[in-house]
Amino acid sequence: MDDDTGALPPKNDFSAWYNDLLWRAEIMDVRYPVKGLYVWYPYGFAIRKYVYQRLRDLLDRDHQETLFPLLIPEQEFMKEAEHIKGFENEVYWVTHGGTTPLEVKLALRPTSETAIYPMYALWVRSHADLPIKYYQIVNTFRYETKQTRPLIRLREITSFKEAHTVHATWEEAEQQVEEAIALYREFYDGLCIPTLISKRPDWDKFPGADYTIAVDTIMPNGKTLQIGTVHHLGDHFSRTFNITYEDKNGEQKLAYQTCYGISERSIAALISIHGDDKGLILPPDVATFQAVIVPITIGKRHEDVMVAAQKLKTDLTAAGFRVKLDTRDLRPGAKYYWWELRGVPLRLELGPRDLDAGKVMAVKRTGEKTSIELATVTEGMKRVLSEITDTLRARAEEHTRSHLCNVDSMDALNATLNEGKVAVVHWCQQRGCGDVIGEKTNANILGSDVRSLLVPATEGKCIACGKPGKTTLVGRAY
Amino acid sequence: MDDDTGALPPKNDFSAWYNDLLWRAEIMDVRYPVKGLYVWYPYGFAIRKYVYQRLRDLLDRDHQETLFPLLIPEQEFMKEAEHIKGFENEVYWVTHGGTTPLEVKLALRPTSETAIYPMYALWVRSHADLPIKYYQIVNTFRYETKQTRPLIRLREITSFKEAHTVHATWEEAEQQVEEAIALYREFYDGLCIPTLISKRPDWDKFPGADYTIAVDTIMPNGKTLQIGTVHHLGDHFSRTFNITYEDKNGEQKLAYQTCYGISERSIAALISIHGDDKGLILPPDVATFQAVIVPITIGKRHEDVMVAAQKLKTDLTAAGFRVKLDTRDLRPGAKYYWWELRGVPLRLELGPRDLDAGKVMAVKRTGEKTSIELATVTEGMKRVLSEITDTLRARAEEHTRSHLCNVDSMDALNATLNEGKVAVVHWCQQRGCGDVIGEKTNANILGSDVRSLLVPATEGKCIACGKPGKTTLVGRAY
Repeated sequence: MDDDTGALPPKNDFSAWYNDLLWRAEIMDVRYPVKGLYVWYPYGFAIRKYVYQRLRDLLDRDHQETLFPLLIPEQEFMKEAEHIKGFENEVYWVTHGGTTPLEVKLALRPTSETAIYPMYALWVRSHADLPIKYYQIVNTFRYETKQTRPLIRLREITSFKEAHTVHATWEEAEQQVEEAIALYREFYDGLCIPTLISKRPDWDKFPGADYTIAVDTIMPNGKTLQIGTVHHLGDHFSRTFNITYEDKNGEQKLAYQTCYGISERSIAALISIHGDDKGLILPPDVATFQAVIVPITIGKRHEDVMVAAQKLKTDLTAAGFRVKLDTRDLRPGAKYYWWELRGVPLRLELGPRDLDAGKVMAVKRTGEKTSIELATVTEGMKRVLSEITDTLRARAEEHTRSHLCNVDSMDALNATLNEGKVAVVHWCQQRGCGDVIGEKTNANILGSDVRSLLVPATEGKCIACGKPGKTTLVGRAY
Repeated sequence: MDDDTGALPPKNDFSAWYNDLLWRAEIMDVRYPVKGLYVWYPYGFAIRKYVYQRLRDLLDRDHQETLFPLLIPEQEFMKEAEHIKGFENEVYWVTHGGTTPLEVKLALRPTSETAIYPMYALWVRSHADLPIKYYQIVNTFRYETKQTRPLIRLREITSFKEAHTVHATWEEAEQQVEEAIALYREFYDGLCIPTLISKRPDWDKFPGADYTIAVDTIMPNGKTLQIGTVHHLGDHFSRTFNITYEDKNGEQKLAYQTCYGISERSIAALISIHGDDKGLILPPDVATFQAVIVPITIGKRHEDVMVAAQKLKTDLTAAGFRVKLDTRDLRPGAKYYWWELRGVPLRLELGPRDLDAGKVMAVKRTGEKTSIELATVTEGMKRVLSEITDTLRARAEEHTRSHLCNVDSMDALNATLNEGKVAVVHWCQQRGCGDVIGEKTNANILGSDVRSLLVPATEGKCIACGKPGKTTLVGRAY
């Protein structure tokens, strides 16, 4: 990648900054010759690997990973009426094998309920088989007609983690919804990404769900990005696919289900929320490299410094850190620029004077400099990386706090949204008022029953009709 | 899964054994409602995870992982003439998005040359960019008209590892072919799977390659299974996709390429080669669980034994082993049967007398019993697991040795193949004689230039025409 092609736009020109950063920092190449399909560069793929490893680690506590086919036969896909309605306009269809028309058209999964649940119908026999908690991480497809954006609105979602659970009762499924929310909260907290969790309005729930809880985050431009959803499916799908179990009394009962998903939007949020005018800033836990060592070799101490830099890399790698030693024949300043753009959280500068003092200069990507003793470099690294994580988390939380605004009139709502903020309003929960709010402000009701310390539940009048309303988030969403 | 549905067929009825074992040991469910598509059970998926982790670890030494789109636009797919011919009858085509016909048909990748190389044309600029060594692990698709078999002949290959490299010269690409062969040999050696590596006849090379080196293994029934291929692509694709670089003298030169792949056939071989009449036998390095602890609790010492078993599990897990403690309310014999079927390499039986003696009884899935001191259980486990690996490797090598047979006439060739063996013949390298051999024996010329200590290169007469020939493998292939 050539860096001599002008500068990164400032982050307050967010859309330009985002698009530019993706290729400059070697996350995604957008030049693949099909709209809405993108290529992961190795550097970006490594971030994906570490982010999804965290997700797997959380899920593997009590879920099991599986893998189901991509292709869903038309008759299975068409079984659940609401579900079809939700997806029929955006499903890709395979119609030919070679030059032969297929007898049964095959859908590319937009999501896998209709691939998985016919198998669950075979697997679930007795109450002793329940609960089932399986997940898979797969590519899914949507024929998007809206403008596509890398990592955000894709025709191939390359990294869809979807969990599908089966339970004996509606209440146990509800409990699983709560567990999934807690899990997603923990996942995003690990990425230093603040979340706004709320219950989507009924007309915006997943097609075939009893209700949907969504995880949103506020992007730098104030738009909200849905970065996770948890659905209580009730018995919609178990009725359709005949997922029943024999209870303790020998009776056949319908099972209850949930599903919940996270996609590479998690990485879109990671990049967008933490980056700055210089480029990416990666939280240490998911950084491709957690530190880059830049040897400062002027004059005759070159060999000493290179030996010490290599030793430092070896020691830190042995201690479990991901470290890059940059030995390229470039000026230090050019290396600084290169790695700042790519978001490496810590730069370790090692020169003759550092060596003599038994220290290395640690420059945080978040701004401050500090010195680490070489003799205790592992502890020093841990401490400094932990400080970087704390700084990123604090900054992101402050961003969220400052982009939330209480609003009690339609006029103020529009003004708040136009300022690039998310509004906290009261809403009566009626669709009519929801539509009025949506039409007058070109925004979405994100949801009520907000789970955030920043948005306490209060009493108030619906900003559309004046009747009693519940605390509700309104934002302009991606 | 219900075990009370009869017994596993004996392994010498290989095809029945294989099909039965896949579901009984919970590797794959074959009941998905589309031919040639199968579902990975969690237990099988874990084996896949450990096998592919080994593959990644080997590749990551000097390759980088990436991810390219599944869908390839028709015009790109149709660019390389030989390549199209090789795949046109087996490509799935997406023709519709929702109810809208697509302007450009999209192929589901059968392999990714035509998805990746347009991007390589953008990425490769200068000799300093070379070599490029990228890989991805993805799902690929073939509209198979032959009989499909789980893990062996699939319509969705769920686990295709494909590496694609770019080099400055033909010779450097040739060197990469050798490195890839060494890497695959190391990979399969780690799985205790013997390999026969040879150069495929010219008419059987990859469509668009200069030559193909293939990795085969001998399955229990004597048929060969191709479990890896390495292709020297010459400049076929770089000409087509215009992958050029500026050399040190400022001249534009065509690049040279290689690609090499491994699929879940690696797991088909793993299962087939090591299993026995009782079920799976998993090499410890890739076993879902490396040991199962079965507490033997008769009478009043129940609590003591359970506490000790739990401690044993905790200690072994902390030491990095994957261990299952089976506390189900079943007779020990039923547990033995369950875990033997699933191929757990080691069973640790812990009863009151073992506890008193400070020992645990270790029963290897490969047959012998031994005793491990609880005080030094980590070292004991390492030793015993290593012995199991050695036994599996020795058995598999003996199987290969005993299924190779030198043959110097067409009559003997047929007899040897009918006995379920692979023949070592001499062949003049002419297609005419290759066709004669194929037609008369219903077998394939696997290849010459065999790289195996078991098959030394010798001089001899072509078994079809009597002219001077090279040492060549002939087998009946999956």
